[in-house]
Amino acid sequence: MKTFFDCIPCLIRQSLDSVRRVSSDERMHEQIVRDTLRETSRMDLDLPPAVMAQKIHRRIRRLCNHEDPYREIKDRLNQLALELYPLCRQRVEQSEFPLEAAVRLAIAGNLMDLGVKSQLSETQVRAAVDECLEDPLDGDVAEFAAAVAEAGKILYLTDNAGEIVFDRLLIEQMPRERIIVAVKGAPVINDATLSDAETAGLPGIVRVIDNGSDAPGTVLDDCSETFRRHFTEADLIVAKGQGNYETLCDCPKTIYFLLRVKCPIIARDIGRPVDRMVVQPATAGTG
Amino acid sequence: MKTFFDCIPCLIRQSLDSVRRVSSDERMHEQIVRDTLRETSRMDLDLPPAVMAQKIHRRIRRLCNHEDPYREIKDRLNQLALELYPLCRQRVEQSEFPLEAAVRLAIAGNLMDLGVKSQLSETQVRAAVDECLEDPLDGDVAEFAAAVAEAGKILYLTDNAGEIVFDRLLIEQMPRERIIVAVKGAPVINDATLSDAETAGLPGIVRVIDNGSDAPGTVLDDCSETFRRHFTEADLIVAKGQGNYETLCDCPKTIYFLLRVKCPIIARDIGRPVDRMVVQPATAGTG
Repeated sequence: MKTFFDCIPCLIRQSLDSVRRVSSDERMHEQIVRDTLRETSRMDLDLPPAVMAQKIHRRIRRLCNHEDPYREIKDRLNQLALELYPLCRQRVEQSEFPLEAAVRLAIAGNLMDLGVKSQLSETQVRAAVDECLEDPLDGDVAEFAAAVAEAGKILYLTDNAGEIVFDRLLIEQMPRERIIVAVKGAPVINDATLSDAETAGLPGIVRVIDNGSDAPGTVLDDCSETFRRHFTEADLIVAKGQGNYETLCDCPKTIYFLLRVKCPIIARDIGRPVDRMVVQPATAGTG
Repeated sequence: MKTFFDCIPCLIRQSLDSVRRVSSDERMHEQIVRDTLRETSRMDLDLPPAVMAQKIHRRIRRLCNHEDPYREIKDRLNQLALELYPLCRQRVEQSEFPLEAAVRLAIAGNLMDLGVKSQLSETQVRAAVDECLEDPLDGDVAEFAAAVAEAGKILYLTDNAGEIVFDRLLIEQMPRERIIVAVKGAPVINDATLSDAETAGLPGIVRVIDNGSDAPGTVLDDCSETFRRHFTEADLIVAKGQGNYETLCDCPKTIYFLLRVKCPIIARDIGRPVDRMVVQPATAGTG
């Protein structure tokens, strides 16, 4: 997906959110904002927003001399998700359709995306867990379940910290021996990295790799060779969140996007309303 | 008020909204957005956002070769306000405290500000009229009424088209022979100009002047000499909306700001919550 003009104010806002997390120095904030404005004025709009975000947040980390501005909030969200995990697991197990319940909860976890919404209260997360089992879900979960059952190799692309604990619920409902879970290769915004996968207890139940990239999405050219090999070999890609949608929606693989629509731009592109939970196969998929 | 970093995404969004109103050419949209990004990267943050907005929108009007991109929506909002006017006037006349009812309706009209919110439905405007008579209002209307009663010369600074019809309700409750109403000197965003004052029927009941400026606020250095003289001579300034607040909040005159708080930046500066209706004297006022 290309970058739409409407994505730009969000990129600016996000850069400000990021620098404020690690510095109270207003001169630093000003430098970052001016820098982001200059950079975005020259950006290649044919590339997805995640590519520009990668550049912006790399630069913020370097200028602020802080390798992980979102570490604190990521820890807090992981903690919150872990507190909710036993209850959520119980809901999955007691559900008539455990895979669907797990899909819904994994998508509910996608609400923990500070990339779009910089404030998120614990109350909102708890409410999301309660509501996700009843809220409308666009997409065919049975078709997704069939794709999972048929696939020899599944690559599960995680999105954010906190959310990754909810991903565990879904991964537990899938054939673990055939799944590889991928996280980001280095910190960017609130995206999950290896340490978050460890906090979520994933390495104990499934193979976990990192993608070698610090883009908030999956920019294949920027990923490691190992990751790209697994990507190519996978029969099914499960891609969480808007960042993965933006960067992979035109990819000719069998991909299921699991996300909550959070902005009007993605809504228009994916053809689903804002706030909707979505399970959607890539239209470019060759099967 | 200076420009806060958080104002910048709004300025970008607003430039996009403006160009889209007059051109469907994506190359034109791109040019405007890149141009705005470059200009804002160099802006003087010690000046109010309205000064930057003035530059941005001047440039958009020139590049698009369109002297009034918001003309159509301004006409529509004037029309809607005129349709609501008889009902509103009846409410003022039937009120136990007509001046307070008129203040409330004039502030409700401030909701018609596309500068902050680019979509506004007729239903929202009608709802605002219904709710404004009951909603909380921060400020001392009796003190404002006393200031009006005492002032020899009153300068009433209007804000937007549509809203200016609601201003008429308040102006009708004030001593008309002592009031001068000022509009903008040229179109900028949805701010009211002389033609809107005429549509609202103001010249028939009160003296109306323009301020000689195309800033979406009151930037005194940019205003005409005549306007500045009236400003200096006024015993009381009534200033509508956020744009006038931004540009005059540090001015050492007796000013009452009448507005609805529409963004967290103004909320923090004025010390009132978002959405609140406010009647507030300038803290820099010397009396």
